[in-house]
Amino acid sequence: MTVKSAHRPIGVFDSGIGGLTVVKALRKILPYEEIVYFGDTARVPYGSKSPETITQFALQDAKFLLNRNVKMVIVACHSASSVALDELKRHFNLPIIGVIEPGAKAAVKATRNKRIGVIGTQATILSGAYERAIRRLCQDVEVIAKPTPLFVALVEEGWYDNKIALEVAKLYLSPLIKEQIDTLLLGCTHYPLLKRAIQKVFPNKIRIVDAGLETAYEAKEQLENLGLKNRHRKRPAIRFYLSDLTPNFSEIGRRFLGTSLEDVMRASLPE
Amino acid sequence: MTVKSAHRPIGVFDSGIGGLTVVKALRKILPYEEIVYFGDTARVPYGSKSPETITQFALQDAKFLLNRNVKMVIVACHSASSVALDELKRHFNLPIIGVIEPGAKAAVKATRNKRIGVIGTQATILSGAYERAIRRLCQDVEVIAKPTPLFVALVEEGWYDNKIALEVAKLYLSPLIKEQIDTLLLGCTHYPLLKRAIQKVFPNKIRIVDAGLETAYEAKEQLENLGLKNRHRKRPAIRFYLSDLTPNFSEIGRRFLGTSLEDVMRASLPE
Repeated sequence: MTVKSAHRPIGVFDSGIGGLTVVKALRKILPYEEIVYFGDTARVPYGSKSPETITQFALQDAKFLLNRNVKMVIVACHSASSVALDELKRHFNLPIIGVIEPGAKAAVKATRNKRIGVIGTQATILSGAYERAIRRLCQDVEVIAKPTPLFVALVEEGWYDNKIALEVAKLYLSPLIKEQIDTLLLGCTHYPLLKRAIQKVFPNKIRIVDAGLETAYEAKEQLENLGLKNRHRKRPAIRFYLSDLTPNFSEIGRRFLGTSLEDVMRASLPE
Repeated sequence: MTVKSAHRPIGVFDSGIGGLTVVKALRKILPYEEIVYFGDTARVPYGSKSPETITQFALQDAKFLLNRNVKMVIVACHSASSVALDELKRHFNLPIIGVIEPGAKAAVKATRNKRIGVIGTQATILSGAYERAIRRLCQDVEVIAKPTPLFVALVEEGWYDNKIALEVAKLYLSPLIKEQIDTLLLGCTHYPLLKRAIQKVFPNKIRIVDAGLETAYEAKEQLENLGLKNRHRKRPAIRFYLSDLTPNFSEIGRRFLGTSLEDVMRASLPE
């Protein structure tokens, strides 16, 4: 690898703007890397759609990033990581990282009683991707997985910790409480914002794993191994491309990123 | 108009499968009409997206129906009816009916105290389309409009009348209760399934207007005026095209249509 390629940006894509949590983690772990973000806000969400459609969308999203000369692609969307990662790796010849493996690794490390709960969109849970990733790392862990799609709508409405958020968390998570999990993997970019409500409904303290940070560490390791880390010491800007400038993107984006989004562009997808 | 054109199907499109409520009403009001339905399940929902993106999608959806030789297009999606109807009428030379006008007409007819509430997606409410349609019919009606996006997620989860549905209805609708509306316009295809929970949170009985049925009556009137009503007396089949066969479409579809969906095809959109 040449020095020139190390200067290229990291590409991150997501079904919408939830993937900004991964951008936030990347800024912390890899502060000198330029980032190009693509959020498919025109077709969001992916999590309620079929594996075929999600894969088709993910291929277009990745191609958009490759056209911006990225050195690595991070799939911040759990649904896309669950169903499309192999296909993406077959199609494109550059390092591609999903959120599933890093999340699974962290959950296996965190559990003491070897009972891990996984929550996510329907596409993520139906795929069984987290179970497979966890079992590859450790055979004797019990994994209890449950789709919790309404959590996304709660976060988008800004209802993180009100009565309704707690009621929804109670209804969704009571089967996992009965299963006595000690670790819960948040298998969707939106869920970390509900962390407090989720913890509240469990009678004991549980370990909550957010794959975003783990994925940033994985990216750092791979860049170092490949000699692709940017050696410049200037904090570069992030470019945000969204397929739709939805009425809410800037408000919701700030919640995920922690700061306001600058340099946002509307981008039509390649056919 | 020729007899031949009267035999052509009615086209109905929606962002997803919520528009099947309109199909259900059409089957009742116009039992001898053939129907071609297009649901854009790959890009659903529309209601959280920008007017530009919704209009672009709506033009593609209508074109898909025109390629199936329809004699009329019904826009069953409130968000698309709110922001794209004029543009659709400019583009295509055939009768096009949205759900806004029929809904507004029914609400104006229903109210006694001239205070009408309107709830819908963000796109529908931000557009002000219902207010404009109501004011065109009656100057001295007060219209109080509120986006209630989480209602869609509740219906898709099948939570119509549980504790959470009631809590969400209470939180969303308490400003409308204070405004003493006597009529509530359900400005989204999903909301009729929450009718009972919505009525429960109002202290007095209110008139709840569902635009689906009104739209079917409007279609009947227009077909009669144009001499385009099918004179055959055989109950024809409905053809359903969906841009994605999502894991849930058949279950949710049955809730909206009242019967199971037969003859469903996956359809890619024209570019």
